[in-house]
Amino acid sequence: MPKKAETSLKARHQKALDDLAGLGRDVIEDINKAQPPKLKIPSRSTANIIYDKKHRYYVLGPRYGVRSAGSMKQVKKVAQLLCTADFAKELVETGKFATLREMYYTAEGWEAGPFRDQGESDAIIEDLEATFGLKRESLGLTPEEDGAAVYGNLVMREGDVTIDATKSGRGGYTIPPTIDDVEFVKCKAKRVIAVETMGMYHRLIQEDAWKKFNALIVGLKGQAARATRRFLKRANEELELPVSICCDGDPFGYHIGMVIISGSANLAYINHELAVPDAKYIGVTASDIVNYKLPTDKLRELDIARLKQLQKDPRYNTEFWQYEIKKMMEIGKKAEQQAFAKYGLAYVVNEYLPAKLKEVEGQQFLGKK
Amino acid sequence: MPKKAETSLKARHQKALDDLAGLGRDVIEDINKAQPPKLKIPSRSTANIIYDKKHRYYVLGPRYGVRSAGSMKQVKKVAQLLCTADFAKELVETGKFATLREMYYTAEGWEAGPFRDQGESDAIIEDLEATFGLKRESLGLTPEEDGAAVYGNLVMREGDVTIDATKSGRGGYTIPPTIDDVEFVKCKAKRVIAVETMGMYHRLIQEDAWKKFNALIVGLKGQAARATRRFLKRANEELELPVSICCDGDPFGYHIGMVIISGSANLAYINHELAVPDAKYIGVTASDIVNYKLPTDKLRELDIARLKQLQKDPRYNTEFWQYEIKKMMEIGKKAEQQAFAKYGLAYVVNEYLPAKLKEVEGQQFLGKK
Repeated sequence: MPKKAETSLKARHQKALDDLAGLGRDVIEDINKAQPPKLKIPSRSTANIIYDKKHRYYVLGPRYGVRSAGSMKQVKKVAQLLCTADFAKELVETGKFATLREMYYTAEGWEAGPFRDQGESDAIIEDLEATFGLKRESLGLTPEEDGAAVYGNLVMREGDVTIDATKSGRGGYTIPPTIDDVEFVKCKAKRVIAVETMGMYHRLIQEDAWKKFNALIVGLKGQAARATRRFLKRANEELELPVSICCDGDPFGYHIGMVIISGSANLAYINHELAVPDAKYIGVTASDIVNYKLPTDKLRELDIARLKQLQKDPRYNTEFWQYEIKKMMEIGKKAEQQAFAKYGLAYVVNEYLPAKLKEVEGQQFLGKK
Repeated sequence: MPKKAETSLKARHQKALDDLAGLGRDVIEDINKAQPPKLKIPSRSTANIIYDKKHRYYVLGPRYGVRSAGSMKQVKKVAQLLCTADFAKELVETGKFATLREMYYTAEGWEAGPFRDQGESDAIIEDLEATFGLKRESLGLTPEEDGAAVYGNLVMREGDVTIDATKSGRGGYTIPPTIDDVEFVKCKAKRVIAVETMGMYHRLIQEDAWKKFNALIVGLKGQAARATRRFLKRANEELELPVSICCDGDPFGYHIGMVIISGSANLAYINHELAVPDAKYIGVTASDIVNYKLPTDKLRELDIARLKQLQKDPRYNTEFWQYEIKKMMEIGKKAEQQAFAKYGLAYVVNEYLPAKLKEVEGQQFLGKK
């Protein structure tokens, strides 16, 4: 049933190996010409981060930096980058993964010399990501933390294990850092509903929202991890599911939604693998706070400053967002998604979500008028 | 196979309902006698928190406070406590759960008046827990966050869903806040290995440690959540599995282990449901740092201050702990569990864990001498 993944797992591994081999060949070529190896690394400085209006997310511009083994200042970094690439090659070939932290400690044994701190080794990994346009996960390097929880009618395969996201327990299926190694086998769900808090996630599971809306319920755990964003993108593209996002009604909730939709600036070099430009933010909006008479807190100074930033952010340059940002400043209030509990625990599933999903999908839910 | 749970799920629900009904009867009795209702609430102040040497964890002492509806100062709190008990009764009867946050918002609609902040509603819930000696989860009230991840040969039942903790994906089975509603159906594992970081957890999964040691691998995600501690206790008591804990080699790692073993002071009223006094801390110890020549960081002032606190803490009053605390201060260094990556990614599974498990269990692992 799932649409064929653009890049299958095998092709993905092969691209990583080809890219790594290409890097090695370039270095050998330089050496054969008796020249110090030079590496061209895309610049990740703010000056080179551009909002791409067509794709609707941040991308890297055309600037490059050149790092040469002929420079005393750069030779150690070049050597460390090559050792890192070699380590990544071994990982991809053996199908293993290492955390960024393990990679940092592994370097303790290198002739190129260990890193001073993990900041240094992380930066080198980002250099490789930007050079190849490949996520570090494709190079066998993963963050520590797992991604979000998923509950609903989705069957997946990880190696030789088949997983049903309704049979992993109430906690749901945990999106691993290695989500691209997971194959979507079967999906009966028709949409994704992603929520900011695990409180709301467990509410939706308990109220059978995944059945009622025929949805995959995703619990984001706050700002979405890379693995979660990748999962949502794959659900949107491979499974062709619309994605709706529901967060707290405050500037930080708005932005958790927006980073899923349009990507973050500091991951501009990899947003083409992460951003879901067609995902919809369904709430909690400032209008919801008013219309549903939600319990609120006053905006703090920090909130107001953040709203002013969002107002000028190119990602928020739409009628919907400009209206909701302005409205929140006017009412001077914010509200949490769990505030709907004021009307009873089931209200959010029986009333709020049907209304909001109808707005974005244009159809009736739960037989509501 | 699992030893019959001392208190089955049904008995657990019944105890909660009986306790709640008892509270209600006491109030009605007072009213029938034309007396303002009085509630006796165990004191949770430090003066009433006692280290129980026999049980090897903190417990509450005998002090009580009396809260009377006849006092202008206390009447609102008494009313709120009764409303909370009523809400809990509804939850237990319908088999539902609400988060502490939802409970706080639910009170917006009460005649007893809403809480000023969640601190107030949380305190009332703790009053009920201490009064009944029941975890709030047994009253249908759960924290937001899920517990740890588990991977290994354990089959469980949640309602009508059967879960195999080797078939929930690489992320493992997520311990839900409602772990007491989960029935252990079958367990082929012979031990539990709990690790502090998810980096180490994923390392152990990848290196097939769950097969090699016939173990349930638990990823604690730092300080163990209540649900995780409850899971470990049930694994230890119901499944009769020895529990080994491996954390970072620093005072905070030591204490993550100790809270699992001997409970925390601020949960003294409920440690009998959470503490696992027979669990063993297998590392990383100060001795390991020396013996394995691990990459280290210097102890910060905060670390040293914390070590001095631990030295005086009754829970650390054993030869093993006093030695390892003193030794860490002597060497002035700490090390992370992932530091073993210096010797290759598989070293921790092939060398370190077999040696440490042999120490605590007295038998050979992986055919090592």
